[in-house]
Parts: sequence; C-alpha cells; structure tokens
Amino acid sequence: MKIDINSDMGEGFGPYTIADDAALMAQISSANVACGYHAGDPVIMDRTIRLAKEHGVDLGAHVSFPDRMGFGRRRIDMALEEMQAHVLYQLGALDGLARRAGHRITHMNPHGALGNLASSDPDIAAAFARATLDFDPEIVFLVLPDSALEQAAHAIGGRCVRLFLADRGYLSNGQLAPRSQPGAVIHDPARVVERVMQVIETKQIATVDGAVIAMPVQSILVHSDTAGAVDLATRLKQEIAARGGEITPLSRQK
Amino acid sequence: MKIDINSDMGEGFGPYTIADDAALMAQISSANVACGYHAGDPVIMDRTIRLAKEHGVDLGAHVSFPDRMGFGRRRIDMALEEMQAHVLYQLGALDGLARRAGHRITHMNPHGALGNLASSDPDIAAAFARATLDFDPEIVFLVLPDSALEQAAHAIGGRCVRLFLADRGYLSNGQLAPRSQPGAVIHDPARVVERVMQVIETKQIATVDGAVIAMPVQSILVHSDTAGAVDLATRLKQEIAARGGEITPLSRQK
Amino acid sequence: MKIDINSDMGEGFGPYTIADDAALMAQISSANVACGYHAGDPVIMDRTIRLAKEHGVDLGAHVSFPDRMGFGRRRIDMALEEMQAHVLYQLGALDGLARRAGHRITHMNPHGALGNLASSDPDIAAAFARATLDFDPEIVFLVLPDSALEQAAHAIGGRCVRLFLADRGYLSNGQLAPRSQPGAVIHDPARVVERVMQVIETKQIATVDGAVIAMPVQSILVHSDTAGAVDLATRLKQEIAARGGEITPLSRQK
Amino acid sequence: MKIDINSDMGEGFGPYTIADDAALMAQISSANVACGYHAGDPVIMDRTIRLAKEHGVDLGAHVSFPDRMGFGRRRIDMALEEMQAHVLYQLGALDGLARRAGHRITHMNPHGALGNLASSDPDIAAAFARATLDFDPEIVFLVLPDSALEQAAHAIGGRCVRLFLADRGYLSNGQLAPRSQPGAVIHDPARVVERVMQVIETKQIATVDGAVIAMPVQSILVHSDTAGAVDLATRLKQEIAARGGEITPLSRQK
Repeated sequence: MKIDINSDMGEGFGPYTIADDAALMAQISSANVACGYHAGDPVIMDRTIRLAKEHGVDLGAHVSFPDRMGFGRRRIDMALEEMQAHVLYQLGALDGLARRAGHRITHMNPHGALGNLASSDPDIAAAFARATLDFDPEIVFLVLPDSALEQAAHAIGGRCVRLFLADRGYLSNGQLAPRSQPGAVIHDPARVVERVMQVIETKQIATVDGAVIAMPVQSILVHSDTAGAVDLATRLKQEIAARGGEITPLSRQK
Repeated sequence: MKIDINSDMGEGFGPYTIADDAALMAQISSANVACGYHAGDPVIMDRTIRLAKEHGVDLGAHVSFPDRMGFGRRRIDMALEEMQAHVLYQLGALDGLARRAGHRITHMNPHGALGNLASSDPDIAAAFARATLDFDPEIVFLVLPDSALEQAAHAIGGRCVRLFLADRGYLSNGQLAPRSQPGAVIHDPARVVERVMQVIETKQIATVDGAVIAMPVQSILVHSDTAGAVDLATRLKQEIAARGGEITPLSRQK
Repeated sequence: MKIDINSDMGEGFGPYTIADDAALMAQISSANVACGYHAGDPVIMDRTIRLAKEHGVDLGAHVSFPDRMGFGRRRIDMALEEMQAHVLYQLGALDGLARRAGHRITHMNPHGALGNLASSDPDIAAAFARATLDFDPEIVFLVLPDSALEQAAHAIGGRCVRLFLADRGYLSNGQLAPRSQPGAVIHDPARVVERVMQVIETKQIATVDGAVIAMPVQSILVHSDTAGAVDLATRLKQEIAARGGEITPLSRQK
Repeated sequence: MKIDINSDMGEGFGPYTIADDAALMAQISSANVACGYHAGDPVIMDRTIRLAKEHGVDLGAHVSFPDRMGFGRRRIDMALEEMQAHVLYQLGALDGLARRAGHRITHMNPHGALGNLASSDPDIAAAFARATLDFDPEIVFLVLPDSALEQAAHAIGGRCVRLFLADRGYLSNGQLAPRSQPGAVIHDPARVVERVMQVIETKQIATVDGAVIAMPVQSILVHSDTAGAVDLATRLKQEIAARGGEITPLSRQK
C-alpha cells in the first residue's frame, strides 16, 4: 500500500504568509509549488524548493493564470498558445531555482481557474498537457480521476497520478459535491482520516448522496491553508504507517 | 576577423512595441532577450526566441530588476540572495520557452540598473556570476572590458565576451563618456560604422578626450530602440563582409 | 450643430507610447484618459491631464479591469461590489491628479471588456453607473445608443452623451458590424469624414447591410491608436467648421 | 489630556491578511490606510474605510512607493515630480472610495522607504508636502518630531501632529534607537503602556542611553502587525481613560 500525500506550498507573497510550510513539509511526500502567478515569488520559491529537497519531498509546478489579486481563482480568457507560453514561463522559472538547489520538477498540477479548465475543457487540457511535456516528457500530471487533463495527458503518452481530496465530499458521478451541499466539506479530522483510510484500503468512497463509488487514487491532497492542516497531515501519516502503508512521493507511484 | 553583432530584443510588453525586432533579427548574430522583468512577457519572449532560432541568432538572457514601469533603469535594493533568486527565475523562464522552440540560452547580459551594478560593484558581480553559472556553467557573459562582472566571472571559471557600444563615445580611461559630454552619443550612422570598423581592425578606439585606447572586443552592440537601428545593423553587416570579416554569434567567439 | 470629438488618451505605460497624444489633443474636444489599469501610469496621467487642460479639452475617466498585459480586453470575473471598488479607485486616482492641474473629471467611458459588459449586461451596467454617480452625480456617461449603460444611467438620473464610432460600420439593428464582415472597419479617411458629416447633418447612417438607420449622437470617437488618427481628426474638425458646425466638449452637449 | 491612538490598517492584499483590522479598529482613533502600493487593494481599502467610518476613526492615507513585493520598504529612485504623481494617485484613489462610504481623508502618513525619506530628506519632504496640500490644504501630516516632513509642511502652512512609537526605544538626540541596540524594541506590553503614560503625562521619555528628553506628541502609534496589537491598544485605551485622558482622533488634536 503505497500512497502519496501532497499539498500546495509556497503560496505566500512578499511580506505575506498563508500556511505553515515548514511544518507541513515534514509530513507530506509531494509539494505543488506556486510559481509567482497566483502566489509565490522567487524568494519564497527558492525557500520552498530547498525545504522540499531537505525533506525528500517531490517538487511539482503549481501553475496558474497571472492573477495575484484574485489568487488565480478567476478565469482569464486567452488563446491556447498564450496559455502555453505562460505555463512554460512558470515551469522554467521553477526549474531555474530548482537547479541551484539540486532538486528537480517531477510533477505538474494546475491551480484554481486554470486547474478547473484543464480538468473540464478538452482543448485547454490538450494544450496544457502538450506544453508541459514539451518542457519535460517525464513530468507526471497530478489529476482528478477521468478528468479532461487525464485523458489529454494519456493521449500524448503522459503519465498521470490520481488525486483524492481528503476533506471533500463526492457525488455518485465521481464529481466533487458543490460547496453549497451538506457534506461537501468535511471539517472533523477524525472523519477525514477515516475516509482517506477507506480510499486507500478499499479504493472506494461513500458519496454524499448515499452511494459507494470506485476511487482508485495514488495521492491524497491535504489543503495547506486550512486550520489544522499540519495536524491532519501528521495524523494521516501516522495512521497510514500504523496500518502498514508507506508514504511514497508522487513520482515513485506505480 | 570574426565579430558578433548583438542587440536587445523582445522589449515590448502586452500591447506595446518598442523596436522592429523582426527586421533587426535578420541583421544580427546574438539577441539579448528581455525576461518579463523590465520588459517582455511570455508571448513576446516566445515569439522572439523563435525569431532568433529561425535566423540562427544566439539566445541570451537580458535579466533585470523587477520594474516594468521604470524599464529596469532604477536600482532596487535587495539582498544578494534575493537578487540571485530573481536572476534564476528569469533564466529559467527564458529557458522554459526556449526548450519548446528547440533553442537554448548561450549567453547572459544584465540590463539597466542591474547591469550597471554588476559592472561596477564586485559583490553584486560575484553573486550575479555565481547564480548564472549555477544555472548553467557554459553560459557566456557579455561584458564591458575590465568590468566587475568580467572579473567576477573569470574568478569562478566563467567565459566572457567583451562588448563595444557602437554609438557611444569613450573616455581615455576606458569608461563610457557621460551623456552630458559632447561626443557621448554618435548619431551619424556613417561615423558609427567607421568607428566599429576601426575597433574591429585595430582593436583600438579614438576617445572623446583625444586619446587612442585599446578596445579588444568581440561583440558590437546595436541599440534596438534607436531610430535607424535596422539600417545601421544592415550597413555594419555589409561593411564587415566587404572587408572580409565574418559575423559570428557570441557563443562561437574565440 | 454642436458636436464633440473624443479620443482615448494616455494609453502608454512607463517607457511605452501608443499614440501621438500631444498632436491629437489639439484636434479633439474630449479625452478619455486611461487610469493605470489597462494602460497609463501616474506620470502619463499627469501629463495627459495637463495637456487636456491646456487645450480646453474635457477630461473623462477611461476605466478598465486591472489587466495591463491584456490591455483591458479580457473579461475578469468579479463580484459587482469588487468591480465598483475598482471603478472608484480609478476615478479617484484620476481626480487626485486632476485637482493639482486645476482640471476636473466631467465624463466617464469604460474601456475594453468592462466597456463591452457595461454596454450589454444590465446588472453590470447598473452597478457601474451607481459607482460612478456615487463618486460624482454630475459625471456624464459617454455611451453607445440604447446600450445597457445608457439605460442604467438614465434609471438613476445620470446624464448620457451618445457616441458614434467614426471608422466602424453598423448593422441595421444599430449594433457595430463584426470585424469579420466586409465594411466593418473603414480605412479611407475621406469616407470616414463623409460618414461623420452624414451622421451630424442627418442624424442617420447607412449600414453595411443596406439600410439607413437613425444615429442621434452628440459625439464622434476617433481611435487614437490607428495610423493617421491626427490627420483624420484634423480633417474632421476642418470639415465640421467648413459646414458651420461647432466642436463642443462632451460636458457642454445639449 | 487628549491623545490619539493610530495604527496602520488595510495592509493585506488579495487573499492575504496581515493584521486583525476589525478588532483593532475598535480600539484606536485614527487609521493610516494602505493605498494599493505597498499593500491594500480596492476591495480591502473599501472595507477598511467603512470600518473606520463605523467606529468614528479618522481616515489617513498611508502612501508608499509602488512596491508590493518589498512591502514599500525599498527606496525607489524617481524624480520628485514622479513621486508627487504617485502620491496624488494614491490620495485620489483612497478619496474615491471614501466618498462613497461617506468618509473623508483627514490625515497623511507616508509608509516605509518613502516615509523614511520624507522624514530625513528636505527636498523629498518639500515635494511630498506640496503634493499633499495641493490635493487638500486641510490634510494633517502625522510626523516624527523635528523631522524634515514636519519642517516642510510648516513651511507651506500645513498642520502637523506628532507621533510617538509606543514600542520603540529612543536615543537622547530624539531619534529612534537602531534595532541592533538593546532596548530598541520593547516587547513587554506593561512597559509599553507605562512609557506611553509617561509621554502623555510628562511630555518626556527616558531614552535607552540614560537621558530624559522632551517628547511633545499628540498621537501614539500601535503597530498593527505585532502579536498582541489588539490587546496592547485595548490596555492603552483603558489606562488612558482610567487616568482621565480622552482618546481623540488626529484631526481633532490641538
């Protein structure tokens, strides 16, 4: 039972901090690092990369539309070619800092509005996957199961690892439950841990609408900016170890 | 007689254009490409890299302090480590786009206030050279003769190519004549060409204060944003060819 | 026959220039000044306001979504309240500089994607008009005839002046002809002048699809960033004067 | 005994928060609000202005050099005229939002590097004071005693209110003790309160180098971003009331 625990990292900016990256890094196996578009800046990226390297944590690019004020949550209409140029710019920038730290990018996970579009729009997914593999054909995509990005990456020979959102409820069709719905966000850490163990051990999850669906994932996302993120990751790690599992970075899945 | 002609390229931004890059690229052998800090954006960088590739022109990083409004001409005080992070971010971003275009960065030339500081301040020069070679030890520095950057690069095994500013007057101490002084800027293209030929053929230049000094350079800078830049580069290229010289990209100098 | 000629002004940024504002300002009666969101910066705004003041040209706020790279042409999704805050920020900033120059804002004209939305979406138009009149109830809206913004402004007691786009073809429903259609953009200055005179003298215009429709406008827009903009404005001004008309700033219409 | 308690407010940005403005606003009498240059954005400014209005707290402009990444702490070299344009832009922007909220700017306090320069450089102070009073001649400057800004403001008829930094040690020459020196920053809230009471009651303060100097101030600054800022302000307010003092906004001092 090998499973990855990943988290979004380096999402501060200049004087601002949003999560306790140093503490959380010790509990996870893969980090999705902001590249200066929705969050992060070269100094923070540098620090985050070194922290990941130090803890043996996989380095991923958490790329976004250029939108600090909106934290990358707003769609920005642009041509596919333009979006690709922004993706390559961010991948390269992260790689530039990683080289000096002796680390390297092994996975890719789009953020916010760009992430939603890459998950749902086949054209955007295809252009996004293409740009990523043009940068480095070995990069692994961290994806939602059956998303447009997963399909687009597979279509051009890209490798994917599937993601489970630890604190979110699912519908019977496999989609995330809308935040307006009861059970959409799970706040009790004990229940979150229990659900994750269910997913790891049975490859299934109970949905908010009463079904049990397949959830064949290799990676668990812990939201870094939620209260109690470090505690949650710590409990998850302990529980997985207690049941004989092994926390394994994303690039070594499968 | 092998000589490089280089120019700053890709210095537009979003809707703005500052020079006729497409025409000038056909006349030069090396391009110093803005990396989105003082000018440029991912779309413009992408286009400029492809143009360079197409014309067999060397690709250089024209890095800067983060200052679009001031076009990188203003000093921004920051710790050496922070400056290095910004340099690596820009180098990586340019490389990210170059990879897809099948091109690669072969030289480095700092812009504006960062360029002035790297030329004159030994600590900044040393940190700057270190970050550049950490990114890629093969990168050639395009430098003013005897500048702090040249010394810093040599001290850690970096290769340098020396630069002559085609349209600027020099003092007998080898420094550029201040713009307030007569002869500091040469506007007559015929005289600019004649001076360049003098430098190429004699490795010497007549100074504004009446001396003749050594000017052992391998590269000529043509300012892309001056009126007549394309004509000047074209005449230079023709004149060099007419006298048996060979325009040779920076990375193939020496 | 009193008519306003207006133009977008101050759309450079830092080192960049996009139009010959100084020459054009002498030919128009109202200026729509960029407020640092899609274009412009405090130095350019200051210069543009002084130029307007000097030429007795009306000062308008040409507000936008915050998007320099996309020149304000891209929709940015935001709550109505957030959009209003951005509008007030820009209006205030322009007013801050106008005060010192002894000038004042008398009209408002939204730019790009924000302009399109304010013209077509009643909710956005209402929020936009509300924020503008909260800033100053005397501000005149420069609008397309029958647009959502015109209706929203009228609904809360705002004054509007209607706009004719000098170089654009219209459909029989009063909308602009899509750029893909023949006749959508008129390049011949003589024809542009003739059309404007038709609009001024008959309050009607021939459409690209063969009809003649009412065009009861009090203001003519000359695009500042088109080649020949200064010549066109000059010819327009002369022709209007030759036929006994009077160029009159927007705030003095009606 | 009338005294003002002021604090820097609205220093978050987009998704980022730096202080508990809502709690602190209830304890102070004047707020220095960031204007989108070193911190703040239109949405945050709007919220902060409304909060100030609601609590009867004076509204001040906390203007800065344009430098979010450096939080306005870095000097940016610019011509005096350019600096003035940036000051007017920020003042106007804050005023634009204040108008709608039914509040108004009554004081000015420059932030970070701009604040240091306005305190120490007579030319910058003069240009800064001039631009502020050109915007509104009634604006009160919140200044360090005997600073260049105080002198420049007085020289052109501006009104000043003097500031005491509650948690900082002073030298016998009236300057702040450098942070490297013992006693430069006072962390014990009880001592901070005691010092403030000394200043209020005796108009004197004991310095870190053993002297007692005059400290004729009308306003106490509480740093909003320090741990315990709300508690400290609350204790200060209670202690002042207990000793018969009256918390009075800056604009009603004297």
